[in-house]
Amino acid sequence: MQPTYDQTDPTSPAGSIPHWIDPVREADLVARRRTVHRTPETGWAEFIATARAAEFFTSLGFKVMVGREFIDPIYVRGRSDTEVSESERLAKAAGVSPVLLQRMGGLTGLCATFDTGRPGKTLAFRVELDALKMDEPADPDHIPYKEGFASERPGLMHACGHDGHQAVAFELGRFIVANRDRLTGRIRFIFQPGEEGSRGAYPIVQSGLLDDVDTLLCAHIATDLQAGTVVAAPEKFLCTTKIDLHFEGMQAHAGMQPQLGRNALLAAADAALILMALPRHSDGMTRVNVGTLHAGEGRNVIAAHADMEVEVRGENEAINRELAREAVTRAQGCAMAFGVKMSHKIMGEAVDFVPDDGIVQMITVCARRARYVREVRPSVPLNGSDDATLMIRRVQSQGGRAGYFLVGAGLEASHEHAAVDFDERYLVTLYDIFANLVIGLSGNW
Amino acid sequence: MQPTYDQTDPTSPAGSIPHWIDPVREADLVARRRTVHRTPETGWAEFIATARAAEFFTSLGFKVMVGREFIDPIYVRGRSDTEVSESERLAKAAGVSPVLLQRMGGLTGLCATFDTGRPGKTLAFRVELDALKMDEPADPDHIPYKEGFASERPGLMHACGHDGHQAVAFELGRFIVANRDRLTGRIRFIFQPGEEGSRGAYPIVQSGLLDDVDTLLCAHIATDLQAGTVVAAPEKFLCTTKIDLHFEGMQAHAGMQPQLGRNALLAAADAALILMALPRHSDGMTRVNVGTLHAGEGRNVIAAHADMEVEVRGENEAINRELAREAVTRAQGCAMAFGVKMSHKIMGEAVDFVPDDGIVQMITVCARRARYVREVRPSVPLNGSDDATLMIRRVQSQGGRAGYFLVGAGLEASHEHAAVDFDERYLVTLYDIFANLVIGLSGNW
Amino acid sequence: MQPTYDQTDPTSPAGSIPHWIDPVREADLVARRRTVHRTPETGWAEFIATARAAEFFTSLGFKVMVGREFIDPIYVRGRSDTEVSESERLAKAAGVSPVLLQRMGGLTGLCATFDTGRPGKTLAFRVELDALKMDEPADPDHIPYKEGFASERPGLMHACGHDGHQAVAFELGRFIVANRDRLTGRIRFIFQPGEEGSRGAYPIVQSGLLDDVDTLLCAHIATDLQAGTVVAAPEKFLCTTKIDLHFEGMQAHAGMQPQLGRNALLAAADAALILMALPRHSDGMTRVNVGTLHAGEGRNVIAAHADMEVEVRGENEAINRELAREAVTRAQGCAMAFGVKMSHKIMGEAVDFVPDDGIVQMITVCARRARYVREVRPSVPLNGSDDATLMIRRVQSQGGRAGYFLVGAGLEASHEHAAVDFDERYLVTLYDIFANLVIGLSGNW
Amino acid sequence: MQPTYDQTDPTSPAGSIPHWIDPVREADLVARRRTVHRTPETGWAEFIATARAAEFFTSLGFKVMVGREFIDPIYVRGRSDTEVSESERLAKAAGVSPVLLQRMGGLTGLCATFDTGRPGKTLAFRVELDALKMDEPADPDHIPYKEGFASERPGLMHACGHDGHQAVAFELGRFIVANRDRLTGRIRFIFQPGEEGSRGAYPIVQSGLLDDVDTLLCAHIATDLQAGTVVAAPEKFLCTTKIDLHFEGMQAHAGMQPQLGRNALLAAADAALILMALPRHSDGMTRVNVGTLHAGEGRNVIAAHADMEVEVRGENEAINRELAREAVTRAQGCAMAFGVKMSHKIMGEAVDFVPDDGIVQMITVCARRARYVREVRPSVPLNGSDDATLMIRRVQSQGGRAGYFLVGAGLEASHEHAAVDFDERYLVTLYDIFANLVIGLSGNW
Repeated sequence: MQPTYDQTDPTSPAGSIPHWIDPVREADLVARRRTVHRTPETGWAEFIATARAAEFFTSLGFKVMVGREFIDPIYVRGRSDTEVSESERLAKAAGVSPVLLQRMGGLTGLCATFDTGRPGKTLAFRVELDALKMDEPADPDHIPYKEGFASERPGLMHACGHDGHQAVAFELGRFIVANRDRLTGRIRFIFQPGEEGSRGAYPIVQSGLLDDVDTLLCAHIATDLQAGTVVAAPEKFLCTTKIDLHFEGMQAHAGMQPQLGRNALLAAADAALILMALPRHSDGMTRVNVGTLHAGEGRNVIAAHADMEVEVRGENEAINRELAREAVTRAQGCAMAFGVKMSHKIMGEAVDFVPDDGIVQMITVCARRARYVREVRPSVPLNGSDDATLMIRRVQSQGGRAGYFLVGAGLEASHEHAAVDFDERYLVTLYDIFANLVIGLSGNW
Repeated sequence: MQPTYDQTDPTSPAGSIPHWIDPVREADLVARRRTVHRTPETGWAEFIATARAAEFFTSLGFKVMVGREFIDPIYVRGRSDTEVSESERLAKAAGVSPVLLQRMGGLTGLCATFDTGRPGKTLAFRVELDALKMDEPADPDHIPYKEGFASERPGLMHACGHDGHQAVAFELGRFIVANRDRLTGRIRFIFQPGEEGSRGAYPIVQSGLLDDVDTLLCAHIATDLQAGTVVAAPEKFLCTTKIDLHFEGMQAHAGMQPQLGRNALLAAADAALILMALPRHSDGMTRVNVGTLHAGEGRNVIAAHADMEVEVRGENEAINRELAREAVTRAQGCAMAFGVKMSHKIMGEAVDFVPDDGIVQMITVCARRARYVREVRPSVPLNGSDDATLMIRRVQSQGGRAGYFLVGAGLEASHEHAAVDFDERYLVTLYDIFANLVIGLSGNW
Repeated sequence: MQPTYDQTDPTSPAGSIPHWIDPVREADLVARRRTVHRTPETGWAEFIATARAAEFFTSLGFKVMVGREFIDPIYVRGRSDTEVSESERLAKAAGVSPVLLQRMGGLTGLCATFDTGRPGKTLAFRVELDALKMDEPADPDHIPYKEGFASERPGLMHACGHDGHQAVAFELGRFIVANRDRLTGRIRFIFQPGEEGSRGAYPIVQSGLLDDVDTLLCAHIATDLQAGTVVAAPEKFLCTTKIDLHFEGMQAHAGMQPQLGRNALLAAADAALILMALPRHSDGMTRVNVGTLHAGEGRNVIAAHADMEVEVRGENEAINRELAREAVTRAQGCAMAFGVKMSHKIMGEAVDFVPDDGIVQMITVCARRARYVREVRPSVPLNGSDDATLMIRRVQSQGGRAGYFLVGAGLEASHEHAAVDFDERYLVTLYDIFANLVIGLSGNW
Repeated sequence: MQPTYDQTDPTSPAGSIPHWIDPVREADLVARRRTVHRTPETGWAEFIATARAAEFFTSLGFKVMVGREFIDPIYVRGRSDTEVSESERLAKAAGVSPVLLQRMGGLTGLCATFDTGRPGKTLAFRVELDALKMDEPADPDHIPYKEGFASERPGLMHACGHDGHQAVAFELGRFIVANRDRLTGRIRFIFQPGEEGSRGAYPIVQSGLLDDVDTLLCAHIATDLQAGTVVAAPEKFLCTTKIDLHFEGMQAHAGMQPQLGRNALLAAADAALILMALPRHSDGMTRVNVGTLHAGEGRNVIAAHADMEVEVRGENEAINRELAREAVTRAQGCAMAFGVKMSHKIMGEAVDFVPDDGIVQMITVCARRARYVREVRPSVPLNGSDDATLMIRRVQSQGGRAGYFLVGAGLEASHEHAAVDFDERYLVTLYDIFANLVIGLSGNW
């Protein structure tokens, strides 16, 4: 397929999309997505996905860094040793190169940079590596099942579109190399671990990788948005902080010497109650949840430990920060009340999204020229979180600009598994918008 | 006067009291008790009672100190300014000498010491001044009502026998002065304020008044003990600490800016729950109670203040101290959790009672010789508190000895008001035991 | 409608009030307001205010009903017997007619209806009677103090503008009677008790008084709105429910027999915590507050009673109703947990406000023609509650229409008592708008 | 009763076991105990132990019933399907007869009755089958490790002496059969599952097995009692009830629609707090513990389930029953408060022990004649629970009698693992006492 572009569109600053080499074929995108879909991995355990990307981008001539080569473990949040070692074991079994695994050093994630050799700006793309913890539906109506590319790992599934994002990034890499002579500056793909739970962006922010980026582009396939709709700058990204609380008390026999115990279960139970009673805020929406609580060693023992998973959300960063701080203070008070030690770990974080007008306009223009697009809307409320916002804020704080757009790829509502699958055709739309943005932002005009 | 004793009284096992001068007449004791009964005053507001004792013991030749003359206000606990000023007003109206009131300086209590001028030991008696907050029954079956000496102050009543104790002390003072030539050393009456709520003993302990005491004698009329029974050394005095907690937060409009408040009501509610969950103790009985909680300024205001009345009890001093400390720690934790300031005040305290064997034996002997005594029992469980124990401990810690005995004076169970009145005849029993102890301990043998 | 205005008033953008008979003089409004200001009364205790209005409107020829003549006590919420009897006593002392007091039957509130005798619509005005519980500032900068018309009742003050509303209603009554021949239908003033706490509207809704009303007009002087600004239809009226919770347990001695108690204090403390933890709502803003909690009889008694004042608010009626229901359910659960009885009383209620476009337009036009008006704004967020909304909803549900507008009368911000006083000149503005609306809605065109 | 003893054993104060046939050899007891020690199984999963006893007692000529042959599953408490199926699998792997496993029907426990054929009483022994969940110390000082008979199942260990009890029962079976001609009536061994957690006695009580028992004998090796000491009738058996609470709410996304959730975690947290605040009791000691709490599905989900393990204890049965009932009521109240369903299961139960004087005297006499006994004490406080008390109460309620004694077998305190191992020599003591009791109670005199 040799797409031709509409030469007559007067809204394009650059006229129209040029006849560049090698636009993507839909079949290639779909095939790539299906490969990724088969091997879902949880956050911070994406060894196969990291290795796949590392080999591919290296072969294209990108300079590639993996895991520990750019990520400092001190900044890593929400990584489970158990999940990692199981996933690493499976990666080895699946034939992932021991050299690569050694380079990763137990940490996933990848940075692939292509230098055109010509002076120019640095353009970066954010790509997510991780999948969700859920079973893939074994249902003839569910396309991955019907077409035979369902998850090979029970309990894990690419249900959030990250498989598609990776497929698009791969083809975009090929497009960039094919058109290297028409481009300037540097183009970088940042494959982040652990987007689910807002865990992976923070160590990437800390790595310095974003500090020379002039423009950071992020996008998401949206299964709840009508196929063919593009949203140039969604709003209402909720700020969130994910906090783990650990209470450490002292055991005692509940019958023999109850007074010797320091009851971590009670401290945590009390904390759960008063965290949920955190005040509302006049400046905007708040949320708080104590999602899990596990405590105690046995029925007849004063419980010496308790663990809680907590999250707060706020309509803006100030509210969220205030809630997170209060949550920890309240839990500390409870711990003190019961003579128990309390420690907390920030497990994830996302902030709100402030779009840059120039980038929004460019996304709008590029989206209008993308295949299968029926409507480009300026905004819809997201009412969710994405830790890409942490990266965006870093780029903006260093003087750069950033964009985040949505590509509607919803299956028909009648489709039973619409919420966890998407219409693969619209990977082409996402690809086209990104390619157009490459041309617009790094094209050698 | 050569008093002869009624040798015909068959209830006295040992015959009678020795041939000293001026033993009491029952009618005098009863008359005195009825006078005291008419003017009940609450703890730390016993101005009339203090003045009455001051005038009486001064007239006898005792050296008398009142209120602020020996009590340092810094040690005063559980004193209500409102109650005090109302009671002082009534005392003035009742004709209490302004000079005496000025000497008291707003503090009640009295120390009356008689020095025989002969070398010898110091013997002290503890007497309680305060009454209870309750209405006197207006019932023809209730003797004070029937005989016309009921409380003249609605809402207050001498229902705990302290009126009888005072009457006995007065007559004992007369006995001592009458027999001054047969006695040695010093004899001291300590009239303590605020025994109810275990409030008054502490500043007396701090006053130094007990530090030269060789023997401290305490006793209590017992309405729930059969008349004629004496208990030489009751056991199971519960240790107790009375604590007031005050939480101070910050107001905010609950609709407009809830997040600006610091919620003292919630901090107190949380504290109430977790105080009641203080652990049991393997070393003995515990009790804890949050008796009152008052918080908040209005329905639509985040509450900025809360006050709680708390008490803990323990079977021994170690348990009680541990509980009291934990209670405060728990409340502090709650305050910290809600960003609220918390302060606590010890409002009262009593410890357990460790009898001295020698004194117990002497009480036993003296009781056997007292009028109307049918049985002297070594011990019964008290299961209550009396802050005389604080004084006892001080005397013992300085090398002295102490005793505490009960004189059964219960009205017949069929009597409706048995719990709040006693059989006045047994004031004679109490008097006799005390007089015998004076002879035994300070007699010039 | 072609009214002509007093062209001599230079502050009115559109001229002035039409040449109907007897437009108000500013001095009269101010004098009347000051009279009302002197005798503040709390909700459901407005005997003087009710009597004053009853005599005035009766003298004008209105048909007048007071208190129990139209209010069924079964629907009365948030009335304090103590406050009522004290206030009734003061009313008698102030010379209020015993006949009127007897007609009121212990209930305040007034309905004054004027029938023009000509066919036409029924137009009603809502006027509030009650004052706030606060001390009037004794400060030379505070006008009521300086000018000598401050509150004569310590602890009570007309600080919410209701004194001004009453003054305007009186003058409007005179205007209506003066112009009776130019009017049609019926005009009714409804003086409601207890607007503070959203208490008084409900029994008025139940009285049937609103069921024949074609248009209900409500307004409020706004001290936090710039003088000269009128808001035609404020938005974000929060729905609210005020709930009193009463817990009734069983006393027991906390030391002797703690297990016999049924602890109402703990049940209430637990309820306080879990009420504050009521969930947020995806459909809009919520608020919840436990404003006061009073529990317990004494330090050493298992508490047998507890009382809590609670309020919930929601951005719409559905949210508010859901929260109110959940709040009661949670408290019931706590009561059950502790073996305690719980009862609740709805003490107040307000819903949101849905303006009628036609009335909003008419208010806008009439406001533009009112004296001292500088700007008419379509809307500002109120972020508060007014139980006029209950009446408005009733009128609308019967096919009528209603309006609610704000008249900015803020004192300069530099004025220390700006929040509790207003610029009296703008009573003229309120009067003019109301008078214009009378002409527009009931004028005999 | 004139037994004569083996005069050659110098360690027996009273000589030795009588010249009946076949008294036990210490080496046999030790060997048997070590066999049992190797294969610890948890409560209700004692398939190997049940099978071992079944084969042994069947071979001796006892009439044997296993598991479902006498236990009705409806009365089974605290049985874990997971543990059972794992343990059953291991039993099969260890060669346990499939026929026996089929007879058990998934339920462990054994009743072995020997009928002498002569008229007489029915004598029964209680024996426990289960082990504890703990790792056996891999320490050269720990005898089972040093001697090579340590647990073959990681995480499980016979640390409570039940292995010794079983060994004694086996040898006692042999003794009975060897002396069958000198005995009368019936002798029954009841091997109960799940003594830990007080789980197994209840279905045995319900089986009717105890209803024809004239005397029930129970005993326990005591590691914290000096070796050589026998306690004829320990006191302070605490009554206890073990309760599992399950809360079932409704999930909802904590960010998107928090109001749709029904929060089981909060209901459980609240229940934990107010269970720990259950009141003290004037009639005796109480204990309460919430030992474990597990709740929630994920950080961002309103938790739909929670599970708690609770226990209460009381100094007597009435207190314990009251506490257990209150605990469930409190939890139900919490569930109701949060709109959550709550169910509870009684997982275990033990009552207090009321010894029969005649049996106590007989135990005392028999113990004095047992080998290695240095002292027989009438009583020591147990301060623990054993659900043998449920069986004892049943026997007593049917007119029978029962005894429970302790055999001190503590290792020297210096021995690091003294608390989880015992001195095997004193199995002989236990055996002798039991054998003497058989002679005394069923001997053909």
